[in-house]
Amino acid sequence: RAYTITLIPGDGIGQEVVPAAERLLRETGLPLEMHYAEAGWDTFQKVGKSVPDETLERVKASDATLAGAFTSPSGSQKVPGFQGAIRYLRRTLDLFANLRPTKSRPIPGSMKNVDMLMVRENTQGLYVEQERRYGDVAIADCVITKGASERIAKVALKEAQRRRRKLAVIHKANVLPLTTGLFLETALEAAKAFPEVETYDIIVDAAAMKLVRDPQSFDVLVTTNLFGDILSDLMAGLVGGLGLAPSANIGERTAIFEPVHGSAPDIAGKGVANPAATFLTAAMMLDYLGEAATAKRIDRAVDTVLEEGPRTADLGGKADTEEFTDAVIEAFRSL
Amino acid sequence: RAYTITLIPGDGIGQEVVPAAERLLRETGLPLEMHYAEAGWDTFQKVGKSVPDETLERVKASDATLAGAFTSPSGSQKVPGFQGAIRYLRRTLDLFANLRPTKSRPIPGSMKNVDMLMVRENTQGLYVEQERRYGDVAIADCVITKGASERIAKVALKEAQRRRRKLAVIHKANVLPLTTGLFLETALEAAKAFPEVETYDIIVDAAAMKLVRDPQSFDVLVTTNLFGDILSDLMAGLVGGLGLAPSANIGERTAIFEPVHGSAPDIAGKGVANPAATFLTAAMMLDYLGEAATAKRIDRAVDTVLEEGPRTADLGGKADTEEFTDAVIEAFRSL
Ligand SMILES: CC(C)[C@H](C(=O)O)[C@@H](O)C(=O)O
Ligand SMILES: CC(C)[C@H](C(=O)O)[C@@H](O)C(=O)O
Repeated sequence: RAYTITLIPGDGIGQEVVPAAERLLRETGLPLEMHYAEAGWDTFQKVGKSVPDETLERVKASDATLAGAFTSPSGSQKVPGFQGAIRYLRRTLDLFANLRPTKSRPIPGSMKNVDMLMVRENTQGLYVEQERRYGDVAIADCVITKGASERIAKVALKEAQRRRRKLAVIHKANVLPLTTGLFLETALEAAKAFPEVETYDIIVDAAAMKLVRDPQSFDVLVTTNLFGDILSDLMAGLVGGLGLAPSANIGERTAIFEPVHGSAPDIAGKGVANPAATFLTAAMMLDYLGEAATAKRIDRAVDTVLEEGPRTADLGGKADTEEFTDAVIEAFRSL
Repeated sequence: RAYTITLIPGDGIGQEVVPAAERLLRETGLPLEMHYAEAGWDTFQKVGKSVPDETLERVKASDATLAGAFTSPSGSQKVPGFQGAIRYLRRTLDLFANLRPTKSRPIPGSMKNVDMLMVRENTQGLYVEQERRYGDVAIADCVITKGASERIAKVALKEAQRRRRKLAVIHKANVLPLTTGLFLETALEAAKAFPEVETYDIIVDAAAMKLVRDPQSFDVLVTTNLFGDILSDLMAGLVGGLGLAPSANIGERTAIFEPVHGSAPDIAGKGVANPAATFLTAAMMLDYLGEAATAKRIDRAVDTVLEEGPRTADLGGKADTEEFTDAVIEAFRSL
């Protein structure tokens, strides 16, 4: 049977990189039934919701969704009724696992021999967004449960099994023994069922330093929501920035894939955005659907073009979105 | 009159690096009245308190304190009655400003032209350590007040005035508008009284990436407690790790200076620890006391020896603590 895929271009350059990815996906010859849907800031302004019900239903009914980029303009947290599309989708669909691979790429500014995967818990911690203000004092809840810690640890352990079998559990249990301590204990407990995975723990500040000094020593990392947010951006920085960073938001029933970069309003509409991160994200989606061989082929095709050119402007080249896409499709065919 | 200084070697290599710093401090010829005091894990095991009252009184009555290192053995958060010495001191003495400079050093692994200063709020956020557990759910409070945000912002703005006049306010107001949003607003408001400082804001994940990719673009950074903890370790990683990272915990009435590194139990007692971070920390202390010229001279003396040798084992050399100290004193004399 065909895979049902929802494509949500979203805001800004999302409108350019998602159609580019659609072209590449069609090229795979896989049975993909792709439909477009709307979400994001523009959608909010038109219909008063960043994710219309129709889109939500489509995403729920799909095997997977590929999203482009969602704007949350600065100050938008104060617009009544507005909630960022990706956060809304993560929460509503309980997309509890945020996977962010970081791999060396043949571009300037990328460290060599880095190949690691951040598995970020995607529903809890400070992202429960429970805040209160009493006069000049504001308090936010940071919530950790055993159940959510266990399920994310299992995802990380399974990913480690498919990779180099090393798992770093990142926490701050020395200062927060009940919350991140619960996360740590639960992850170490879950690891007992995976004796072939070498599981160790590391305090978040030490992890930040070690990622900078010795990223090659990491394979899979698992941590709570906000630590994962910060460290995965740090990791992307090591291999040249967000321009090439893919990500997945995975739940029990469906998953949403999105490049980590934003909507880049400064270059939106000009046809010059770099679709490489979206291609790598599409590859993650195919891997999730069980099409690992095609996923790898896309990954290699992107690397080939990054190495041999043409490159887009963000990487010092002159190609526009279409020329870069043509080149990747060409490379994909010849692999 | 003389400056009253308390020296707290603490645990592990603290017992070696603080006496080395004392030698260097004596060499300055400044009127320093130095007294030793006890604190740390060893002290806790002897007297049941990580900071005995006598030490607390000494620190309170001193112009400044230089601490070596404090162990918090893993699992120690579960030892009844134990609280890490530095956290206890920060809280009890309301040492609200944690200053962590990061500067390129002439050692392998240090990026060039980096010169920035993290100003970390040191009393609030998740470090209020208010946690609860209900069955399988744990909750920690993250507390931000306007007052504490304002006073730390002012410290950062004043530091920026003395430096290159750029201040990055780091936050996550897009997800936490009430708490880190309050911090952000308050800092931007405080900045209005410092029009000569270019103040801008940056979201914590973006800051983590930018620190990796373009650390030279930063001058002063100010942020909430845990973000400051994570990012300052990242920053230290860029210039070769914790081996050379100094820090200050500053309150209204006194201040405690400590190298960021730990007690290094593996090499403690062997006389081979690198005292460079403690020397740079002592320099920060002198600067705080108003002895900027001598502070700079120590900083330069350390750089001279790092460049020309001898180096300690952690930097690939063969010098022990005493030889390195001799060399720095020698360099200090000839500057
Ligand atoms: C846009 C923002 C809410 C989001 C987050 O903090 O999770 C982003 O930084 C990310 O990492 O996907
Ligand atoms: C030891 C620990 C409590 C401390 C902290 O988290 O503040 C340390 O990491 C630091 O940065 O001084």
